Amino acid sequence: MTPGLLVPLLDYAAVLVFALTGALVASRAQLDLVGFIFFATLTGIGGGTVRDLILNRDAIFWVGQPELILLTSGAAVLVFFTAHLFESRYRLIVWLDAFALSVAVPAGAGIALQAGVSPVVVVAMGVVTGTFGGLIRDVVGNELPMVLKQGELYVTAAFGGAVAAVVLIGVGMPRPVALIFCGLVVMALRAGSLLLGWSLPTYRARPPRADKNNR
Amino acid sequence: MTPGLLVPLLDYAAVLVFALTGALVASRAQLDLVGFIFFATLTGIGGGTVRDLILNRDAIFWVGQPELILLTSGAAVLVFFTAHLFESRYRLIVWLDAFALSVAVPAGAGIALQAGVSPVVVVAMGVVTGTFGGLIRDVVGNELPMVLKQGELYVTAAFGGAVAAVVLIGVGMPRPVALIFCGLVVMALRAGSLLLGWSLPTYRARPPRADKNNR
Amino acid sequence: MTPGLLVPLLDYAAVLVFALTGALVASRAQLDLVGFIFFATLTGIGGGTVRDLILNRDAIFWVGQPELILLTSGAAVLVFFTAHLFESRYRLIVWLDAFALSVAVPAGAGIALQAGVSPVVVVAMGVVTGTFGGLIRDVVGNELPMVLKQGELYVTAAFGGAVAAVVLIGVGMPRPVALIFCGLVVMALRAGSLLLGWSLPTYRARPPRADKNNR
Repeated sequence: MTPGLLVPLLDYAAVLVFALTGALVASRAQLDLVGFIFFATLTGIGGGTVRDLILNRDAIFWVGQPELILLTSGAAVLVFFTAHLFESRYRLIVWLDAFALSVAVPAGAGIALQAGVSPVVVVAMGVVTGTFGGLIRDVVGNELPMVLKQGELYVTAAFGGAVAAVVLIGVGMPRPVALIFCGLVVMALRAGSLLLGWSLPTYRARPPRADKNNR
Repeated sequence: MTPGLLVPLLDYAAVLVFALTGALVASRAQLDLVGFIFFATLTGIGGGTVRDLILNRDAIFWVGQPELILLTSGAAVLVFFTAHLFESRYRLIVWLDAFALSVAVPAGAGIALQAGVSPVVVVAMGVVTGTFGGLIRDVVGNELPMVLKQGELYVTAAFGGAVAAVVLIGVGMPRPVALIFCGLVVMALRAGSLLLGWSLPTYRARPPRADKNNR
Repeated sequence: MTPGLLVPLLDYAAVLVFALTGALVASRAQLDLVGFIFFATLTGIGGGTVRDLILNRDAIFWVGQPELILLTSGAAVLVFFTAHLFESRYRLIVWLDAFALSVAVPAGAGIALQAGVSPVVVVAMGVVTGTFGGLIRDVVGNELPMVLKQGELYVTAAFGGAVAAVVLIGVGMPRPVALIFCGLVVMALRAGSLLLGWSLPTYRARPPRADKNNR
């Protein structure tokens, strides 16, 4: 694989898999097929859109590649007709989201590296590309944002992978190899959290607030 | 009407009518007059702002036309002093929103056509311009986003109108006429849904989740 | 102080203090240290990012100043280890947010003035820079947005300060002095509201809706 091919490939994969999670959220909200397409597209391209806006790229990645919208729409149609086959759509969302995170973080970091920004911004763009599609999906879909799930590695998984990419490139590893490592680190941290309960100490000074109006 | 006048006119109308819905949400939240202006402006210009950012236009449409902010502020003042005259402010929001959707979708599609993007992106920009102002209004105002209302044509109405515009232009209809048809399609689908119960089949595999924390 | 130094200084202060409020929201959600960094950064740079996108500046302010991300991360670490020392973290958030608002509004207005936009847009950019970081923090953090708190001057404080800046510059006051006045007006209005109950008349036609699904 040529180095120039990896990042677009990761971007495509992230768009597709995030689109599946968006369509699954639409299924939880019992929307119609166009609602599925809306959520699939919003989730699939959301993170990369915010990244491209922040990096001030000449064009948002999907505006010049409209086939990406067809891809997210196809993912929506697929889910609309097959989601009932899965016992727990929520578990499916969580695992597809984990996979999408694992490809979106290196995609975002790779595009930031191409843009020539500082390592701190590379890490930030990896995290933004990885987390914002799901964040927009959850906020619009009235779900609890995954970034708020206590005792799980989520932002931390994205952050760990993005830092790994920057460090490995810093010590001389070829960029494509470092980006693949980055994705593996994200997946390992996220899967370890979901399967083995890996977590970082959380802040715990008093019981969580009961609800948003109780203060 | 010259072709060059229609799109700005639609944009103005969309800003004004969405602003009215934003002010009505502010009335439901019992805010003060400045809160009304905030919500009216956010809702009035939200969709077009996201569209202009994605299309990477030289300037966001309202930055060069500050009178639009005065328009949304005027709408807010009007609603602040008259909203109590209406029996159901929620019904009023729904119908004004339907009208705003019907002018915002062709406005967004028209601007995307001027930008020369592909038909798929034209449809996406119609939907974004139509739905995002109301989406931002509902998320910030702590209302259930209209895109989540089950069994109603909302995104579907926007989508149907935008597709109609692209198809009609594709078969040779003059652009302004096609955009007017686009708006009529949006309004017909939305009104048919609200008055006659038109809907597409929705996904229905199991009862909806009870609340966002119950998983 | 040279005139050219004031605006960056206000921007730095706003980023730092908003970051503290973001980390405190992360503490209320009982996140881990990376979750604190995520919320601190999102809140610290959110308002200025939206402002820079709307003004179409060549680069988002923090992309060229990655030390700002280190600043928000440092704020997060500080809060992670000290938040338990405060009796009411919510009161602390409210007051830090008030201070951040008081520096972010003049920072946003100052940058808009440098961009040469019309006075109406200067006011809008002051309000956006002041309120959007906290708005994003509250929406993502599942808190009730401060813009919805009834009977408090919040958007109104930001608006009052921004209008004061534009008027004072319009009558010939040197820009840096006017921006300092702007910040004092914001703080006076917000503090007066919190301590003395200052408010504007709110819209009150019927009791507030019980919840977002009850219509």
